[in-house]
Amino acid sequence: MSSTSSYAAQSAASPLAPLKIERRDVGPKDVQIAIEYCGVCHTDIHYAKNDWGMTNYPVVPGHEIVGKVTALGSSVHHLKLGQQVAVGCFVNSCHTCSSCKADLEQYCLNGFTATYGSPSKDPGGFTYGGYSKDIVVDEHFVLTLPSGLDPAGAAPLLCAGITTYSPLMHWGVKPGMTVGIIGLGGLGHMGVKLSHAMGAKTVMITTSKNKAADAMRLGADEVLISTDTEAVAAMANQFDFLLNTIPVPHDYNQYMNLLKVDGTMCIVGCVGPVAELNTGPLIFGRKSVAGSLVGGIKETQEMLDFCGKHQIVSDIELIKMDEINHAYERMLKSDVKYRFVIDMHSLS
Amino acid sequence: MSSTSSYAAQSAASPLAPLKIERRDVGPKDVQIAIEYCGVCHTDIHYAKNDWGMTNYPVVPGHEIVGKVTALGSSVHHLKLGQQVAVGCFVNSCHTCSSCKADLEQYCLNGFTATYGSPSKDPGGFTYGGYSKDIVVDEHFVLTLPSGLDPAGAAPLLCAGITTYSPLMHWGVKPGMTVGIIGLGGLGHMGVKLSHAMGAKTVMITTSKNKAADAMRLGADEVLISTDTEAVAAMANQFDFLLNTIPVPHDYNQYMNLLKVDGTMCIVGCVGPVAELNTGPLIFGRKSVAGSLVGGIKETQEMLDFCGKHQIVSDIELIKMDEINHAYERMLKSDVKYRFVIDMHSLS
Repeated sequence: MSSTSSYAAQSAASPLAPLKIERRDVGPKDVQIAIEYCGVCHTDIHYAKNDWGMTNYPVVPGHEIVGKVTALGSSVHHLKLGQQVAVGCFVNSCHTCSSCKADLEQYCLNGFTATYGSPSKDPGGFTYGGYSKDIVVDEHFVLTLPSGLDPAGAAPLLCAGITTYSPLMHWGVKPGMTVGIIGLGGLGHMGVKLSHAMGAKTVMITTSKNKAADAMRLGADEVLISTDTEAVAAMANQFDFLLNTIPVPHDYNQYMNLLKVDGTMCIVGCVGPVAELNTGPLIFGRKSVAGSLVGGIKETQEMLDFCGKHQIVSDIELIKMDEINHAYERMLKSDVKYRFVIDMHSLS
Repeated sequence: MSSTSSYAAQSAASPLAPLKIERRDVGPKDVQIAIEYCGVCHTDIHYAKNDWGMTNYPVVPGHEIVGKVTALGSSVHHLKLGQQVAVGCFVNSCHTCSSCKADLEQYCLNGFTATYGSPSKDPGGFTYGGYSKDIVVDEHFVLTLPSGLDPAGAAPLLCAGITTYSPLMHWGVKPGMTVGIIGLGGLGHMGVKLSHAMGAKTVMITTSKNKAADAMRLGADEVLISTDTEAVAAMANQFDFLLNTIPVPHDYNQYMNLLKVDGTMCIVGCVGPVAELNTGPLIFGRKSVAGSLVGGIKETQEMLDFCGKHQIVSDIELIKMDEINHAYERMLKSDVKYRFVIDMHSLS
């Protein structure tokens, strides 16, 4: 058993401070990774602050992890020392349920093990995430990073990237389709890049006129200002698919008329109660409201390879570990374009 | 121009009384039908009472129509005089939009013409429905009734039947699947019969223990009492598809955990605000909430042929025209198993 330096939230009230916690030994199927970069997801804030009442302190957030292999278990043969790899939102699942067998570990019927905060046999009893010098992960949950991708910009692909890629793929986005990405933040900016790369006509739907230029730069073909009722009415029945990345409760019903018959709006940004469901737009057009959670391991690797081919990474601001509290404050004000990534070399 | 006796609601306040209104001439593409039976749908009550604030009096309700051909336009060749035919919820559409071209006239982007209450070039300026001795309808919207089906019991197939058949078919219900029909009324009892005939394991989901025996008689394989939290928990992740026929606002979220990953609940019973949308069950299982409206003309004919093959009709109570007010009162108390049908021979 060895020990490692991690940056952990020890309680909701206490200041964040470096902390010595143990990592588990490298078992036969494990991969030890020296973490180079870790993206900062809004979920990290919820956990650090115990917003959902389920945090076990100390918690080490971070599930957008890029690093290099530093040790391999005896039965791991498809990776090599020094290889650039990545870890996303979960690090274990039951491997036996119908979801796991269908490469949908994110919907494991027995519950996946989240990269941080889940019960675990690791020292400490809970998994610790990516705000750390290194991590030990079962090989099944270790992704490989395509060469040529900036590793810092690639880190957010492991959550923001796959969370938008998976529904776009599941609902068959392709050339000839019109896709609306609702909300331009960490998820939304990845949605625009990916939908554009998949060949769909991509429309950024936002309340903010001042985001229009940036949306076009990211790959949007058009920008629809959702408060412009005339513009919205003119685009009724135009969209094959809407990806809703708004992270807070809101009246999503206003967007349903944009969908064609048989269209789907998939909500990925806001977990929990959003607004009243009005069945009118669903019934008078056989439309659907759906949800989607990150993506399975196989699909996450496909997403990374797709991003390698299309040279897609996240737009990031690279920060040092001791800037994390300020980063959280800025994220709560939506003041980041579009993802903070921690340079883990800065963790002493 | 000829005239005909219809049974019309003349205003929300006045008593219902027979009324002389004109029908249109039989044009080249028209079919004149002597109405024998007309089912009584809850929508009829909403229109008669102007619940939706959109009724133009006098209104002649009725969109579950079965009768016999009494006259044919000069260009109508696929029907013959005396043939048993049927008319459902709409009698015209634009024929040119993408929905109409896809045999989905119910989602006509220019708005279909409802069988009653829609603006029309007919005398009176609005369409008049099936509480009448006869009706003139464009041949495209006239269905043929398979031989061997009881014509009175078949009438409700034109709305209650197709409203449940269409989503069951659209979401691919077949042997090997488990389907839940939520709510046992006019729609629900057709849903049970049709899902059973499609070969799916069919579970009636109801709050009422006293409906269990009847549900089994109709074809349910099991009955799940939705207030029995243990029984509901035991069936989590078991259902491929849920057809929700509850006609009033309710917390549909309670049913979402019954669905498998990628499952859909389709709401057909309640139009308008239902309850708050909680995205949790959608996101943590890629589930969908959808809606569906009756079915297109081609699919309605397929449904009638399916019912002919499987000898499926509605369970009905046959009434005389002058019993309609009492029938409405009983329907408002859910006191009907499971559909009133008016014997139009009783309209003098």
